[in-house]
Amino acid sequence: MSAKNRLIYIPLGGAGEIGMNAYVYGYGPADKERLIVVDLGVTFPDMDTTPGVNLIMPDVDWLADNADRIEAIFITHAHEDHVGAIGLLWSKLRAPVYARQFTAAIARMKMEDYSQPTDAIHVVGPRPDVVDAGPFKVQFVPVSHSIPESSALVIDTPAGRIVHTGDFKLDETPVVGEPFDRELWRQIGQESRGVKALACDSTNVFSLHPGRSEATLAQPLKELIASQKGMVVATTFASNVARLKTLAEAGRAAGRSVCLLGRAMRRMLTAAVETGIVTDFPQLITPEEAVDTPRQDLMLIVTGSQGEGRAASAALSRGKYMGLEMREGDLFLFSSKTIPGNERAVIRVMNAFSELGVDVMDDRDGLYHVSGHANRPDLEVIHDLLQPKIILPMHGEHRHLREHCRIAQEKGIPAALAVNGKIVDLTGDEPKFAGEVEAGRTYLDGYGLIGAFDGVVRDRIRMAMNGHVLATLILDEDDQPIGDVWVEIMGLPERTRKGALLAEEIEADLNRFFDTADEKTLREDDKIEEVVKRIVRRTAMEEIGKKPEVTVVTSRLSAED
Amino acid sequence: MSAKNRLIYIPLGGAGEIGMNAYVYGYGPADKERLIVVDLGVTFPDMDTTPGVNLIMPDVDWLADNADRIEAIFITHAHEDHVGAIGLLWSKLRAPVYARQFTAAIARMKMEDYSQPTDAIHVVGPRPDVVDAGPFKVQFVPVSHSIPESSALVIDTPAGRIVHTGDFKLDETPVVGEPFDRELWRQIGQESRGVKALACDSTNVFSLHPGRSEATLAQPLKELIASQKGMVVATTFASNVARLKTLAEAGRAAGRSVCLLGRAMRRMLTAAVETGIVTDFPQLITPEEAVDTPRQDLMLIVTGSQGEGRAASAALSRGKYMGLEMREGDLFLFSSKTIPGNERAVIRVMNAFSELGVDVMDDRDGLYHVSGHANRPDLEVIHDLLQPKIILPMHGEHRHLREHCRIAQEKGIPAALAVNGKIVDLTGDEPKFAGEVEAGRTYLDGYGLIGAFDGVVRDRIRMAMNGHVLATLILDEDDQPIGDVWVEIMGLPERTRKGALLAEEIEADLNRFFDTADEKTLREDDKIEEVVKRIVRRTAMEEIGKKPEVTVVTSRLSAED
Repeated sequence: MSAKNRLIYIPLGGAGEIGMNAYVYGYGPADKERLIVVDLGVTFPDMDTTPGVNLIMPDVDWLADNADRIEAIFITHAHEDHVGAIGLLWSKLRAPVYARQFTAAIARMKMEDYSQPTDAIHVVGPRPDVVDAGPFKVQFVPVSHSIPESSALVIDTPAGRIVHTGDFKLDETPVVGEPFDRELWRQIGQESRGVKALACDSTNVFSLHPGRSEATLAQPLKELIASQKGMVVATTFASNVARLKTLAEAGRAAGRSVCLLGRAMRRMLTAAVETGIVTDFPQLITPEEAVDTPRQDLMLIVTGSQGEGRAASAALSRGKYMGLEMREGDLFLFSSKTIPGNERAVIRVMNAFSELGVDVMDDRDGLYHVSGHANRPDLEVIHDLLQPKIILPMHGEHRHLREHCRIAQEKGIPAALAVNGKIVDLTGDEPKFAGEVEAGRTYLDGYGLIGAFDGVVRDRIRMAMNGHVLATLILDEDDQPIGDVWVEIMGLPERTRKGALLAEEIEADLNRFFDTADEKTLREDDKIEEVVKRIVRRTAMEEIGKKPEVTVVTSRLSAED
Repeated sequence: MSAKNRLIYIPLGGAGEIGMNAYVYGYGPADKERLIVVDLGVTFPDMDTTPGVNLIMPDVDWLADNADRIEAIFITHAHEDHVGAIGLLWSKLRAPVYARQFTAAIARMKMEDYSQPTDAIHVVGPRPDVVDAGPFKVQFVPVSHSIPESSALVIDTPAGRIVHTGDFKLDETPVVGEPFDRELWRQIGQESRGVKALACDSTNVFSLHPGRSEATLAQPLKELIASQKGMVVATTFASNVARLKTLAEAGRAAGRSVCLLGRAMRRMLTAAVETGIVTDFPQLITPEEAVDTPRQDLMLIVTGSQGEGRAASAALSRGKYMGLEMREGDLFLFSSKTIPGNERAVIRVMNAFSELGVDVMDDRDGLYHVSGHANRPDLEVIHDLLQPKIILPMHGEHRHLREHCRIAQEKGIPAALAVNGKIVDLTGDEPKFAGEVEAGRTYLDGYGLIGAFDGVVRDRIRMAMNGHVLATLILDEDDQPIGDVWVEIMGLPERTRKGALLAEEIEADLNRFFDTADEKTLREDDKIEEVVKRIVRRTAMEEIGKKPEVTVVTSRLSAED
């Protein structure tokens, strides 16, 4: 190892938030390191901070500026927050993408969605297969999670081995996929010169009990479904193929025909079957067959565990969906947890079902759902098996990363609380902060990408909070107003507290001003805009108690018109 | 009792939601019943459904139309969702308001806030004091909740006794206020001819364990605070005076000086001390004294348990507040639960503290917080003590009311799932639906009240989701366009996916249209508006993938201009 080379870690997404994962490793001379990227995920917008936005992804401008240094992109698994941005951002990076078969299948769909070349996606087998990417040798190590073929990455570099867990849990009976193999992990920790750095999922660091296995759900689910007299409908994440299987088997065990509803779910299962991940999925019936099945003999598994307005669950809560309808005495089961921020949407669906007389069951403290992430004791198992020299907590909000650092430090392992954009130098015995790169968020808005600070979303939020007033004024070639100012309002009450029309009150105040306005003001559009905005806001505040956004259009007629 | 008289129950708020409580009871000939109102509360807006709105309250138009039939308004306790609308709605109802001393003090402040007469508020002592209100005789029965002097109402009518619980829990050691008195409740159930109808809080009907007492928090809180080396800051609801006392005592027991921060909290404690509810509150220091107190000797109790951006907790998470500042090694404790919908705001504050190096502790599964509502077993205790002939589940979402009905029916007690606006006839042995009245939501927006369906908020949401395009066009007296169409955009990306200016692209398409527009279209503003909107949306969809809201201003110059 040349003394001049260094090994660096740069999170660009996922470090300081749950979602939008994107991590960079580099090896080489400072600022000329060869780079690999791990995951390119999205996160989802909300009305509070990102109204009208379609998707949120990491700002990869720094990576794009250094695209010639990127050897490869690795995708650990097919969740949206790890693969969702590949189709949107690949054209800026143009490096080969490596993933296991199922993940690659999903990644190809993402590329197709945005007309990107699917042959950029390469399928890799699990360890011992190795991808050579410049100074990096990368292996995919199967881990359990809530989607098939999740993988940790073993990344060997001239400066030592990095283990990047991706999202994972320890599950010895995962229903789909390989069970947790303690000996394998011990071996990974002991090979080579041991593990230099462990970049580790932090999502569940505040969960103090050991995680539970997917297999523990089978019996409670069977009992629940067997006890029902009406139709049973269950929802979970579409990509949780193991859960789909557990649910379908429980339905079949209760003598019910099982039907999957929702495009995302059928697409995921198809991918899982086509890639050979699932070979013994219970027999399914079509929605058309389901319509003809007596409700006591029917179980539906549907999309929409987060209350999404367009998903099958919400559609069923509103009435008929694909000819199927829930009724008094039916059961709707959330075999899922509600992601923070989605509570209101989920509760809305629950109450809509209640109005139909449908019984709703949620995860009941874990009886009908287990998490896909390692809890604190599980994280410690991995720490202990790998005995890394450095821990890099990743995939978590600041508080998760901080807690994970504390656990590492209690074990005497140096840890770096590196949030998005930080450069961490891993070359020495301890992690060292070595500057930062531009990081942030990019929004997909309609067809285009916009920056989080472009002001577009800020203006939307302001219009939503304050309403919007438009004032138009026409001036002749001598800068004299022609006719009156015209005011339109949107998102504001039509009438003032005294019962007058708000637009007319504002017009009256503006016209009073223009009746006596001096020529200097009338000559300059900027001055007119400034004074009109001030008058509109003052009048609106007096009349309705709000300070609206204001757009002023000043039209000047010239002689030619 | 005349055969023609009937006893009715009409929820106007709180039945089908948690928050915004308002219930009506009536007795007399059909449609001429004399009425009493129980509670007039608010609920809080959110960006998803009510951007820019200040407060949400029940639509009381039906009550206002029947104001001459209202004998009195009773307020069970001083939480915003029970008393918050009194100042805003009283002028529509103009009936005397009755409440116990502490609640009356808060109600008077609400009246003052909106320039309403405070002498409409009358203080009533607890049972055996009785308020005569037409055919109703009403007693206030002390119950435990998370605010002082909460009361159930015993409402005697010629058709029998109603017990309206308000919000309550069973607490034999409530720290502040009277302990739960089983014998008293049994007596209420046995007096007179027993309880005809029980209108009962449903908030915690899904909580299956018996509720825990406020007093159970003292020891864990003492231990937690005593174990800290840095400053300790705790938050809870400002109105939870018992919790303030528990927290302050735990701080004092750990040898710390205690300071309250946040206007709402100081106001609540002052009201509690002035009304004699709390006589032995631990000594407090002022914020100025707190600044001069070594941090290891200091405990702050602050507002902002729901992550409210303007409260003391959020201010401290951002930096200095009133000269005080949290640092590495300090502790911030949420002695509270997060109300669904507030998760993101609370998590934002938690992460901001994490960035400061402050340790954050939440309620830890109840170790540092207990609920103020009766859990399912506690509800059953009340059912069993009162043995009502009818149960009216109230204060809950649809799913809570439905579950509460089921519990009642399992006991063989008829129950009515009555949501806002339903008229329930309680005269007979079973509750009967007897029509409905107009119910809904009214928004306080700036100074004014607007209806939920006025379209104002809908327009705000649309502008936030879709952006807003303004197109202005000037026509001469012959209906010919003067100059070009002028377009302004707000909340939309400036540039199209091809890099052109969006406003210019739209202008070009509009001008192309107007160059060849027929005279018939140009004569009518409506037609112009329609076609401009269509062109703007089509062009925006093509260029940026969004369909904006559009406002069209057509100015016609006449000969006089």
